[in-house]
Amino acid sequence: MNSYQLYPPFTIGVDLGGTNTAYALVDSVGHILEKGSIPTRTKSVEEWADSLAENISLIIDKQKLDGMVEGIGIGAPCANAITGCIEAATNLPWPSPIPLVNMMESRLGIRTVISNDANAAAIGEMTYGAAAGIMNFIVITLGTSVGGGIVCDGHLLSGTRGFAGELGHVTFPFAADRKCSCGRMGCLHTIASADGIRETTRRFLSESERPSILRDIPKGEMTPKKVEQAAKKGDRIAQEIYRFTGECLGKAAAEFAAISDPEAIFLFGGVAKAGELLLAPMREAFMESALFLYKDRVRFLPSKLDDADAAILGAASLPLNMK
Amino acid sequence: MNSYQLYPPFTIGVDLGGTNTAYALVDSVGHILEKGSIPTRTKSVEEWADSLAENISLIIDKQKLDGMVEGIGIGAPCANAITGCIEAATNLPWPSPIPLVNMMESRLGIRTVISNDANAAAIGEMTYGAAAGIMNFIVITLGTSVGGGIVCDGHLLSGTRGFAGELGHVTFPFAADRKCSCGRMGCLHTIASADGIRETTRRFLSESERPSILRDIPKGEMTPKKVEQAAKKGDRIAQEIYRFTGECLGKAAAEFAAISDPEAIFLFGGVAKAGELLLAPMREAFMESALFLYKDRVRFLPSKLDDADAAILGAASLPLNMK
Repeated sequence: MNSYQLYPPFTIGVDLGGTNTAYALVDSVGHILEKGSIPTRTKSVEEWADSLAENISLIIDKQKLDGMVEGIGIGAPCANAITGCIEAATNLPWPSPIPLVNMMESRLGIRTVISNDANAAAIGEMTYGAAAGIMNFIVITLGTSVGGGIVCDGHLLSGTRGFAGELGHVTFPFAADRKCSCGRMGCLHTIASADGIRETTRRFLSESERPSILRDIPKGEMTPKKVEQAAKKGDRIAQEIYRFTGECLGKAAAEFAAISDPEAIFLFGGVAKAGELLLAPMREAFMESALFLYKDRVRFLPSKLDDADAAILGAASLPLNMK
Repeated sequence: MNSYQLYPPFTIGVDLGGTNTAYALVDSVGHILEKGSIPTRTKSVEEWADSLAENISLIIDKQKLDGMVEGIGIGAPCANAITGCIEAATNLPWPSPIPLVNMMESRLGIRTVISNDANAAAIGEMTYGAAAGIMNFIVITLGTSVGGGIVCDGHLLSGTRGFAGELGHVTFPFAADRKCSCGRMGCLHTIASADGIRETTRRFLSESERPSILRDIPKGEMTPKKVEQAAKKGDRIAQEIYRFTGECLGKAAAEFAAISDPEAIFLFGGVAKAGELLLAPMREAFMESALFLYKDRVRFLPSKLDDADAAILGAASLPLNMK
């Protein structure tokens, strides 16, 4: 059925999103044997857990891997790797905390570990992606929210309660006039998230009279993807939006370098798909801002995990890397 | 000769400063059996190394601990734990890089490890001081320079080339108008180092006409210690200088918390001796600035290592903690 060699051990990766929960059965080098998805918006969390457990059982049976699955990894916002609970996820329809690890282990009898999505991305990148063999790197996830995963000396930073690496909520002067959903001013999230790019677009369009194909997009339908497409078609304002965003990321990276003396910084997630549109100005701004110790030393790279499956693969890598 | 129980293994701690090199023979709980010091300003680094090795041999012989010393730890600015060299120490009289580890191992036949002084402080605090048993903490060293040591998940961050945790060179808006010795604007170093406090004193005195005993101190003789003493005598301007410095440290700590989700932040070094004069405004500013996840969670504490020997103890703890 699979045309390539499979490498045990096998794991299940689960990406718990606000709308859908995607899951997959994965081998140790990141081949997806089978995947599926269920809606997240069920009446109760118990109902969701029953459905997820049933679907996972089904794909394990179908692949004849009963008893051969090493663990389940779940990536979710605000997931606390230490308590095994989702602490306070504002985008999920159920009351917090949600004891996710217990709920899965009691249903399936398979060891389950959880982590926030940015940390899962970092471990996924290290296990199957572009960070393989790199002992010191930072992943910045750019999507609905901005997160960070810091791998230092080969170890993913967790911290007292699992909240190490919340780089989306480090504040910077370039965002001093932007209010974050966390209630503070100036967080990187306000610039580099999907909403941040929408806000930059709104400002850049209102501050100039220049023509732009972005002006034809109805308010409420603006997405980073549409800005990216416009930039790639040569739209100047769209290009400036990505240049500004990349420069901010480069200045932020110059500060982050002092945390962990990284060899590489990876961009991951929906907004990061703009690739060099972000990475080129990011490198330039980093070179201008960074301490001499870090200049010329840090590579800026896109994630190598397949876009569609990146979050699931990140989650699937968790049981291989967390004790 | 020693009135207390000694606990093997024994180590040698060396604090390599710009003027003097202090060394001590230490047991595993931080008792100093014997210590001494030699001048750093010798003609050649070989001469310095010969003298240090001879003195270390002498105290080992005298304590009858030949063959029982587990290792030598050297704390020095710009010491690279990975290469075993001092990379570019501007305050030392010899050309860089200096292959410190080789120089000691070839002379004494004892395993030698080196680390920058802030990292040595962090490991010393964990081994013998107030951070014993704490798995997640940050040490900020405040002295001639400002450094950082980050312990996350029980592990001291080193990074690609040993330059993780250079928190003195993270930049902040509150220092945007101060040029750092590294050539950049806004580093924490420009506020919280001895020179930073001198600069704040100069500014606060020139910006007001109010009386202050600091006005009687000749330019060039101002030290953080004198400002501290004035503050403790009730001098308002001196108190405001420490309040400002503490507030800046609190705002910085609010950003640093997102790195490693720490349980505690320790202040270490000469400037930190001001204690609550810095810690009280630091706590307040942290509570105002930090992300909700970290508020109320981080303790701000002074180092518990004996002032006079703190740097030597930090160095002595290195061989116990570095492989």
